[in-house]
Amino acid sequence: MAVPARLTDDEIQTRLADVPEWRLEDGALCRDVKRKDFAQAFGFMSSVALIAEAMNHHPDWSNVWNRVAIRLSTHEAGGITELDFELAKRIDQLP
Amino acid sequence: MAVPARLTDDEIQTRLADVPEWRLEDGALCRDVKRKDFAQAFGFMSSVALIAEAMNHHPDWSNVWNRVAIRLSTHEAGGITELDFELAKRIDQLP
Amino acid sequence: MAVPARLTDDEIQTRLADVPEWRLEDGALCRDVKRKDFAQAFGFMSSVALIAEAMNHHPDWSNVWNRVAIRLSTHEAGGITELDFELAKRIDQLP
Amino acid sequence: MAVPARLTDDEIQTRLADVPEWRLEDGALCRDVKRKDFAQAFGFMSSVALIAEAMNHHPDWSNVWNRVAIRLSTHEAGGITELDFELAKRIDQLP
Repeated sequence: MAVPARLTDDEIQTRLADVPEWRLEDGALCRDVKRKDFAQAFGFMSSVALIAEAMNHHPDWSNVWNRVAIRLSTHEAGGITELDFELAKRIDQLP
Repeated sequence: MAVPARLTDDEIQTRLADVPEWRLEDGALCRDVKRKDFAQAFGFMSSVALIAEAMNHHPDWSNVWNRVAIRLSTHEAGGITELDFELAKRIDQLP
Repeated sequence: MAVPARLTDDEIQTRLADVPEWRLEDGALCRDVKRKDFAQAFGFMSSVALIAEAMNHHPDWSNVWNRVAIRLSTHEAGGITELDFELAKRIDQLP
Repeated sequence: MAVPARLTDDEIQTRLADVPEWRLEDGALCRDVKRKDFAQAFGFMSSVALIAEAMNHHPDWSNVWNRVAIRLSTHEAGGITELDFELAKRIDQLP
């Protein structure tokens, strides 16, 4: 699979409007997710893991109990690409 | 932890009213769960796995893509116990 | 993705030699896996889930505590295909 | 469950000898784990998640593809306790 092109700042700003849960921070697309408890947070993480593996595009993420902090960027492109917005949208479809 | 007592048929019938998603089948408390796709079904399973491990009471379950079939009984008690209804209720609280 | 062709009995027998952990049963490729406990069995299942989702080819499987029974077949092809052997091989590479 | 007592620096140093994979860093017990790929790293994380939930003691952890960085401390005790060493030992028993 070819590496997608790095998006320009303008392109990123335009696409951010489609994913209101996400913000731009330190060159990555970021979202903080909070669930009821650890069991629900980890269930959410498992769904994200399956989606990410199927896209072969993986998050840089951390978890403390019921909180999950997700950072998306495309290392090979040196920035944010369509892949990151695609993954963000799929994550947002989870319950 | 002591093994809880096996519930009588009358006790089971009374408690079934509290968990309308579940049915009695072949001596087990059963529920079939359907999610949107495999990613969501497996996320659900991960949450159930954490809850089950914390209770040290595990389901007999199967999965095919977006469907999960759960059977609960307490092997050491030779039937259904309070533990099964407790696990059923916690499962029902998942999104 | 095109559905792969159903393998003939001879083709299946030949390929079974490559995956000695698996057996043919009721028209499916089957393996029973046992781990030390539920935590390890479910960790194994999570790895399998990611691999399956990436292949878009999912197992028919069940779990009771430290045991996982996996059945592979290709529903759309009405039998066993190369996809099943491919998934079997990837599963066998897991620790 | 009562919160265990915060261990002194001497007590921590003594116990660190039992878990050679772990180091003390910024007041937490830390270990970096690397697996073959994301599927194996997330399978490992799932096992850890089950163990942590059963202990009701959860890691502060992050993941990027095949790497998992784990930090253990006991927030309620304001430092490292026996719980952290217990969780570390159980994590080290995973394949």
